[in-house]
Amino acid sequence: MPYFDHNATTPLAAVAREAWLQASTEAWHNPASLYRDAARARLRLDAARSRLAEFLGCAGEQIVFTSGATEGANAVLAHWAQSLPTDARVAINPTEHPCVLEPAKRFFGDRLVWLPVTRDGLVELTAVQAWVEKRQVAGVVVMAANNETGALQPWNEIAHCCAAAGAEYLCDAAQWFGKLPASGLGGAGWVIGSAHKFGGPKGKGFLKWPVGAEHFHAQWGGAQQRGHRGGTEDLAGAVGLVAALAEAEQKKVFHESERLCCRDQFEQAVRVAVPGVTVVGGGVERLWNTVSLLMPHTENTRWVTRLDRLGFQVSTGSACATAKEGPSHVLAAMGFASEESKRVVRISSGWETTEADWNALVEVLGRLENEFRADKGNVIQL
Amino acid sequence: MPYFDHNATTPLAAVAREAWLQASTEAWHNPASLYRDAARARLRLDAARSRLAEFLGCAGEQIVFTSGATEGANAVLAHWAQSLPTDARVAINPTEHPCVLEPAKRFFGDRLVWLPVTRDGLVELTAVQAWVEKRQVAGVVVMAANNETGALQPWNEIAHCCAAAGAEYLCDAAQWFGKLPASGLGGAGWVIGSAHKFGGPKGKGFLKWPVGAEHFHAQWGGAQQRGHRGGTEDLAGAVGLVAALAEAEQKKVFHESERLCCRDQFEQAVRVAVPGVTVVGGGVERLWNTVSLLMPHTENTRWVTRLDRLGFQVSTGSACATAKEGPSHVLAAMGFASEESKRVVRISSGWETTEADWNALVEVLGRLENEFRADKGNVIQL
Repeated sequence: MPYFDHNATTPLAAVAREAWLQASTEAWHNPASLYRDAARARLRLDAARSRLAEFLGCAGEQIVFTSGATEGANAVLAHWAQSLPTDARVAINPTEHPCVLEPAKRFFGDRLVWLPVTRDGLVELTAVQAWVEKRQVAGVVVMAANNETGALQPWNEIAHCCAAAGAEYLCDAAQWFGKLPASGLGGAGWVIGSAHKFGGPKGKGFLKWPVGAEHFHAQWGGAQQRGHRGGTEDLAGAVGLVAALAEAEQKKVFHESERLCCRDQFEQAVRVAVPGVTVVGGGVERLWNTVSLLMPHTENTRWVTRLDRLGFQVSTGSACATAKEGPSHVLAAMGFASEESKRVVRISSGWETTEADWNALVEVLGRLENEFRADKGNVIQL
Repeated sequence: MPYFDHNATTPLAAVAREAWLQASTEAWHNPASLYRDAARARLRLDAARSRLAEFLGCAGEQIVFTSGATEGANAVLAHWAQSLPTDARVAINPTEHPCVLEPAKRFFGDRLVWLPVTRDGLVELTAVQAWVEKRQVAGVVVMAANNETGALQPWNEIAHCCAAAGAEYLCDAAQWFGKLPASGLGGAGWVIGSAHKFGGPKGKGFLKWPVGAEHFHAQWGGAQQRGHRGGTEDLAGAVGLVAALAEAEQKKVFHESERLCCRDQFEQAVRVAVPGVTVVGGGVERLWNTVSLLMPHTENTRWVTRLDRLGFQVSTGSACATAKEGPSHVLAAMGFASEESKRVVRISSGWETTEADWNALVEVLGRLENEFRADKGNVIQL
């Protein structure tokens, strides 16, 4: 069954499964214990941390293994709320993931400055620069790649601007890791990632803290992870995460351009098969795997359900928002009406998705388009 | 190699590995997505939650899957800090685990009331009752079983007393689950557990919230886990956790009395093999698996190192404290001197530990005792 919902989650990669199983079998001891088997687990954990740090370009000690990007975002924003002046303001991109938006609202409330975004979903870099350079905000929150549209934000420029002004920067790179090279993110302030978005185990993630944040705590408790996060260290989860990312970094991300071709061909074909369709964020650089389609008619839940019956798994938007009421906050921030938002279908491929999968999807979308249009005609004639 | 450090962590149980692998292979979809495979994952997750709730005796919706007991303790204490009056005081047992003590100090500081404990490590129930009944504290924090000594606290009585007075109660049951029946803990206020202490995967745990705490959030973000914890749900981790606990609940906890016999025989034998040894907390009910020995001489790190070389893995105390300076806070609260604390060796068996393992350990402890005593004599003679 062609799976087109990789931005929601990915299947566990074989290398990640193997690494998890091996560590769970051979090196299950508590890395904090004093005997030699524990020391061996500790060394393996340090090696995993160093390997991950090399991909980002930072020191191993700047990496904290977490339970995922949600933990990371909550921890960083709680830390800022404690460490920044009590009247400090934080500039935030309104198309952030809920795991960033919700703790940001909770910890900063009306001290948040909402950044303007274009109709294509890009934050306006000049606005970020103006706020930061005038020292009117103490922190900036802008993701690397959007989960609903795939839009790539200018994180590198923002990171430099914040570093120059001494402002904090939080970059949620959960959708970037494993799809594009991690290189450079080591220099981008606070960075969070999530293993299950790139073939690693669920409930595992990491956080990269910037130089100068040595007193950061993700969780209070024991002295694990150099005191940055209490809780027994999970070697199996860490090596599973790193194995999956290493496979992507070493084998996959070089194929970006050919995958971009597949995506672009799909977008051209779908414009023919579904007349009146719009590619959301179509004017900007986006992840090679993500296509957000504003359908000309018919609610997205109907598209998703019928596609599922025909063997294609896609999404109405962010998976984590499906249980919530209301339209996508991402599309609202981009200026789409609530009614339009209900017609958006998100398609997100993976490295294993083939050209044939994309072609089959176009064919089925065209077929459903005819069917739904006919239904609509019938309804109108009643 | 006989492993006597189960209170630090346990090997992954075969049933947990099997459940984790099966879910990772068959049901890896995001439980929040809209297609049928996702719905199947969601149903399995709900089933795991219900099964766990049945063991505790509470409603499934009161269970939140977390990344472990440290996350749970941090989340509950942060929640109390927000939801209790700003001058509310909290009574706390000083022998709690650092994952409870550290966030408690952080969120309540000098609003903590330190409960008295006996030389055997029991909190004085009458003191708890007095504080609660006079409404002088709004919350109580007392663990179910101590990780260093195995001492069992009167959690059931405390839970009833708190419920009657409308006070909050946090019960860290990380060392109780899987060793003694979970039954009844469903009625004990806020309860936290950790999978890797009973054969489940590391980095997985759960939290049980009390009726009336419907607005509790462990992490802010998406609407997962009925809004109680943002972050993509980890079905594999949840079913691994529940499989391990179910095996313990259905097969193992009935063997408590015979395991208690093994432990008691060991304690008798070690008093002969190591003259002058003291069983810490020897006067109170303790976990069937835990023996904390105050050695008559020689630092515990030397015992641990030599035992490791001879094939026995034991601990100096809490694994999570090994990277920290200073003596055990648990032993200090029980009235032991810092110098004594450095001579304490923790031995914690598992369900698979045999009588032969215990006998072999006694034999080796006796041998080392002779060796160390001779060394000590030599040193004194120098």
